[in-house]
Parts: sequence; C-alpha cells; structure tokens
Amino acid sequence: MIAEFNPFHNGHEYLLTQAKKVTHADVLVVLMSGNFLQRGEPAIVDKWQRTKEALNGQADLVIELPIYVSMQAAHLFAQGAVQMASQIHSDYLVFGSEHPNLDFNVLAAEAKKISLNTSTYSQSFAGQLFSALYEKTEINLHTANDILAFNYFYANQSLTKPMALMPIKRHEADHADATFKGMHFASSSAIRKARLAHNDVFTHFVPKQTAIDLMGQLVSWNDLWPYLKYRLLTASLAELRTIYGCSEGIEYRLKTVAPKSTSFEVFLQSLKTKRYTYTHLQRLCLAIALNLKKDQMRGQVPVYRVLGFNRKGQTYLHKLKEFDIPVLSKIGQKENAVGYQSTYQADQIYGLLTQKEQNIGRKPIISL
Amino acid sequence: MIAEFNPFHNGHEYLLTQAKKVTHADVLVVLMSGNFLQRGEPAIVDKWQRTKEALNGQADLVIELPIYVSMQAAHLFAQGAVQMASQIHSDYLVFGSEHPNLDFNVLAAEAKKISLNTSTYSQSFAGQLFSALYEKTEINLHTANDILAFNYFYANQSLTKPMALMPIKRHEADHADATFKGMHFASSSAIRKARLAHNDVFTHFVPKQTAIDLMGQLVSWNDLWPYLKYRLLTASLAELRTIYGCSEGIEYRLKTVAPKSTSFEVFLQSLKTKRYTYTHLQRLCLAIALNLKKDQMRGQVPVYRVLGFNRKGQTYLHKLKEFDIPVLSKIGQKENAVGYQSTYQADQIYGLLTQKEQNIGRKPIISL
Repeated sequence: MIAEFNPFHNGHEYLLTQAKKVTHADVLVVLMSGNFLQRGEPAIVDKWQRTKEALNGQADLVIELPIYVSMQAAHLFAQGAVQMASQIHSDYLVFGSEHPNLDFNVLAAEAKKISLNTSTYSQSFAGQLFSALYEKTEINLHTANDILAFNYFYANQSLTKPMALMPIKRHEADHADATFKGMHFASSSAIRKARLAHNDVFTHFVPKQTAIDLMGQLVSWNDLWPYLKYRLLTASLAELRTIYGCSEGIEYRLKTVAPKSTSFEVFLQSLKTKRYTYTHLQRLCLAIALNLKKDQMRGQVPVYRVLGFNRKGQTYLHKLKEFDIPVLSKIGQKENAVGYQSTYQADQIYGLLTQKEQNIGRKPIISL
Repeated sequence: MIAEFNPFHNGHEYLLTQAKKVTHADVLVVLMSGNFLQRGEPAIVDKWQRTKEALNGQADLVIELPIYVSMQAAHLFAQGAVQMASQIHSDYLVFGSEHPNLDFNVLAAEAKKISLNTSTYSQSFAGQLFSALYEKTEINLHTANDILAFNYFYANQSLTKPMALMPIKRHEADHADATFKGMHFASSSAIRKARLAHNDVFTHFVPKQTAIDLMGQLVSWNDLWPYLKYRLLTASLAELRTIYGCSEGIEYRLKTVAPKSTSFEVFLQSLKTKRYTYTHLQRLCLAIALNLKKDQMRGQVPVYRVLGFNRKGQTYLHKLKEFDIPVLSKIGQKENAVGYQSTYQADQIYGLLTQKEQNIGRKPIISL
C-alpha cells in the first residue's frame, strides 16, 4: 500500500483490513511518506508516530518514501512509489479511491497513446490530459484519489512485471471533505482541521493511538513560515532559481510578496495567480524552506528506510535483503550520504520545529 | 565621530561634549553603525532609536555606516569609516580611547614600514603586528579602543588630506568592562548585560531616552539563533563557501556543530578553536545568518544614509549635496539597489526579529 496517514484514521484501518481480505497477502507493506507530504506540507505528527499508528492498525512493515518521491506532483509521486512497490516484489497494490469501478486500465492505456512525458507533465498539461481522456472515454477524473489512482495505473503499465492494482472504495468521506458526514469515517483533512480548531469531535474518527498522538505536539505550515520568510528575505534571485520547481520568473514574485506577508496563508494567497494551483505553490514553498535543489529531487535511486515492523514484517525484511534491496534500518553519519541525504536534511528541519531528532539514533518501531 | 552607541550612554554624552569643546566644530557629525555591529552582533535597539538617543545627546547629524563598513574586522572598519569621514570633509575625527596619550602617529608610521596589506591582514597577523610594534616602540596595544584608535591613525595616514585625530580619554570604564565601577560612567556591554539580567542599575549610566528605549523591545543573538541554525542545517557546503569570511574549511565544522547546538552560546563555544577568536567566529555567524556574500562586502562604494539631524545638521546636509556626496534621505524600492542593497537585506532580517520595518517609508529623525 502507498499512503501518507496524515494522520492514520478509521478509514485507513478499514482500508488495511480490506486489503488483507481481498488479496490474502502474506504481508502488508506500507510505503509511507516521511515527514513531508505530497501536497507540499509537513506531516501533522512525525513519521515515527504515524508508523506506530499504522502498525497498531494492522500494517506489517512500514517503509519510508524518501522526500524525492513523497514531495512530488501526483504523477511523479505515483511513478516513484509504484517503482518502489514493484522493486520489493509486491504482488498487489492497494489504495483508496472514490470511484474504484472506473476503468483505470483503459484510461491509462488511452493516456499512453497521447504519448505522455511524465517528467515534464505540468499542472496545466494534466488538465488538458484529463479533458482529452474524457472526450475519448467519457470518464471524468477530478477527485484527488481518482487522479492518483489513474497515475498508479499509468506507472504500473510501464513496469516489465505489472502488479495487480486494487482500488478500494472510500466510505462516507471524499479525500477533500473537510466536514464530518458519517459516524465513523472522516478524511484526514477534516480530522486535522477539527483538531487544530480544538474540536474534540475528531476523536470519534481515529483509533486510540492517533487520538493520543494528536493530543501532543502538532506541526503545520505555521511553524515553518518564519523560516520560509527569512529564507526569502535573504536568498538572492540566483539562489532561488536553483530550487526544485522554481522557474518561469516566479522568484521575482516570491521576493516581492514575502516581505509584506504576515502569515503563510496571506503569503500563499498573495502569491496565487491563474497560472499556478495552491498545491503547486505550496510544494514550491516547501522546496525553498527545505532548500531542495533540482538535482536533489531528480534521478535519485530510492533507498528503503525501515520505519517499523511486526513479526510478519520482520520475516519479509529478511527476504528483501536476499533480493538485494538497499534497506536502511538505521541512519548514521555515513549512511545519510547514500540516497538519504535530502530526506535527512528535510528531517533536520522537521526536528528543528519539534525539537525531536528524526534519524540519528532512531531504530525501527518493533511491534511483536 | 565614528560610533556604535550600543546603546548611547553617559560616556558617549561626555565624549560628544568634549568633542565640541576641543574642536570648536561648527557641526558634529556621527557616522554610526546601523543595525549590525563590528563584533558581529545585532544592535540591542534599532538604528532609529540609537539615532534619537544620539541627537538628544548633542549630535547634529547622524549618518549610517553601511553594513560593509560596520560589520568588519577592526582594521577594515576603521579604513571604511575614516574614508567616509574624510569624504564628507571632516576636519577632526574624535573617538574614545583608554590611553589617548599613546603616540598613535608613531605607531601607525612604524606599521607602514612593516608594509601592511590591510585587505588581507587577519586576526593572527594583527597579533604578530602588535608584537612587532611593541618591540620597536615599547607601546603595547591591547585594549579594544586603543587598537581601533591605532587603525584610525593608520587609515588616516593614507589619506591625501589627513584629518586631525582626537582620542579622548574614557572615564571610569574600559570598553570591555562588564561591571559598574564608577557612579556615572559604564561601558555599553555592562549596561546591556545588566539590562538583559533585569538589573535596573543600568538606568544610572544612561540618559533618559536610552533608559526608555531599553525598557522596550531588545534584540540579541538569541533572537537570531533559530535562523542561523536553520540556515546551517539547510545550506550546502558550497553555499556556505560563498559567504563573506567563510574559508579554510570552517564550513565543515559549522555543519557538524550546528545540529547538536541548543543555543547560540553553546554553538559558539563548540565552534571555538585556537585558530579563531570569538569575535571572528561571531562575525562569520552573522554573515551566514544575513547571507552576506563575499562580493557584497568588498569593494563597495559607500552611500551616506541620513538617519537624523538637528538644524545645524540640516545646514551641513545642504553642503554635502553641493560636494556631490551620494546622500540618501529615504529608501525606496529602487534606491536599495544603489550601494544600500546589503544593508537593506540585513535590515529586513532585523525587521523580521522586531516586526518593525527599518527602511521603506522611514524618514530621518528631525530634532529642531
């Protein structure tokens, strides 16, 4: 399974149970984003807390998606994550979807005919692509998880040995729902929003471990904002141009808007134009705050950082080592040079916000 | 007069009165460091507050030393400030000194024979120089103001039309004294230290305006430290090497020590080696925090930013314009490109700490 668990909630627990039921898999491996997520934001609680939540919720092995996978636009996120899933010999790939009955295979095959170049395909290109696909198939892709599902299928079709993909119907809450409609399931964003507004209703929608974690220290863009502003005030235009995703002269706009902005929300709103979505801009802001360069986010060979496991997961870990997969169980001063450097650097900033070291001296969480 | 006024105290007031008395000057111009000072630290209160303090204390015109003068090692600070003083047609240069009777002219002339290259002369070279001078002259230069005085004389001797230099005896307190010995005079560092320790005794040693300012918001390295740490965690070694003063591999040490340091004090202590003085390291840290590059700190043509004046100062300002001196009375978006850019950038960080804009929309303080 590919997941963010920001945080792990009842819907995720349902998804994991269903995954085991439909696949009869020996082991359920979760490839989970680390401390920074696909939409360009820090995780509300750190990767260790979310790993513990996932292990309590029936995951057998949790492996970290490194930042050059986790913090990418949907199609690159999917491409990276699918490749990692395939490399560890997964038979099935399970994920939530608003419309699991859509014929994603047909959609992806049609998209291949449009000769997609996934390394350059931009937000506006995605819009054009989905219109073109609609004309051919009358399938309208517009919800976040459906778009992600499409990208999983697309990436999967390029594998020499594709996996069996299994979209599972989300219950009671779409990904973007910020309200509580049902009695048991709510989206991560609804849960985060309620928690940040000190509305305890969120506790009905999450397992106990998540409820405990969410009563502790939380991280949001507000914590990162002073550092982003500082960076934008001091960085030269030339320095900004080295950042991943900074192009087309947006560096001038960033430098002009930053000094006047009193909060991240105000900043993002002032920055917004028709040309860019909020998510696109937010992802750029995160790359600046973390000082991620173009060469750090492209063409990286992923490493497999183990965040936690149970007995089943442990057995599978031994297999991975036999397969010659570059598994990392701990990070020392030397290891962070090999494929983990950008994630390590980003984690140092997460640690600056929480005052908790994220890597050195941390061992996988074992749930036996 | 060349000054920092960090903050303006009774000793400074005495110095200004003496300056007027001994020179019978028409106008007393103070070339005052802006928000960042020679020893690599932010000023305890901002340049506008310190300007007001100075105008109340008999200064007629306060002009800002731009950051590429104010934040330099003693010899470069002296060189830049003396050149600026000379360019505005000063007849006298007045400053405090522990030992005003030392024969600084002889010392400086002797130093010229050692063929000093002031652009490269380093901390260790300074030590050797002062030993050599002692052997020749039996004059021992070791107190901060005497060393600065020596550098003023040295720079002054290189001018085509040297000024008359007037060291004035400091009373009751050496520059570095952190205790209160006298009843009326104390050093700036003693005053800052007492204030930061919430010891009201400092009020006896400062004029009323300073006492008021010191009861308001104060700035210290502690405020800047989170940003320096953040910067060191995210900057690459190559980026650090572009910073003014970063050389000889110290970038490796900076990157290694930063993650483990919980405060600026701890950081500086862990960084210290025999090779560098605390002041040298502190100045480097400030350059990193402000992202000041090598080319921003060298070979700049100084601009004369007017911070405040009284009627006498105003008259002299008109003369300066006749002399074709590049005087800046206000800073707009365009003006900050002409020689003021690095100071402007540094001030934006000072403003980030205080939430007070330092340049745009600020007019000189007029005290008529």
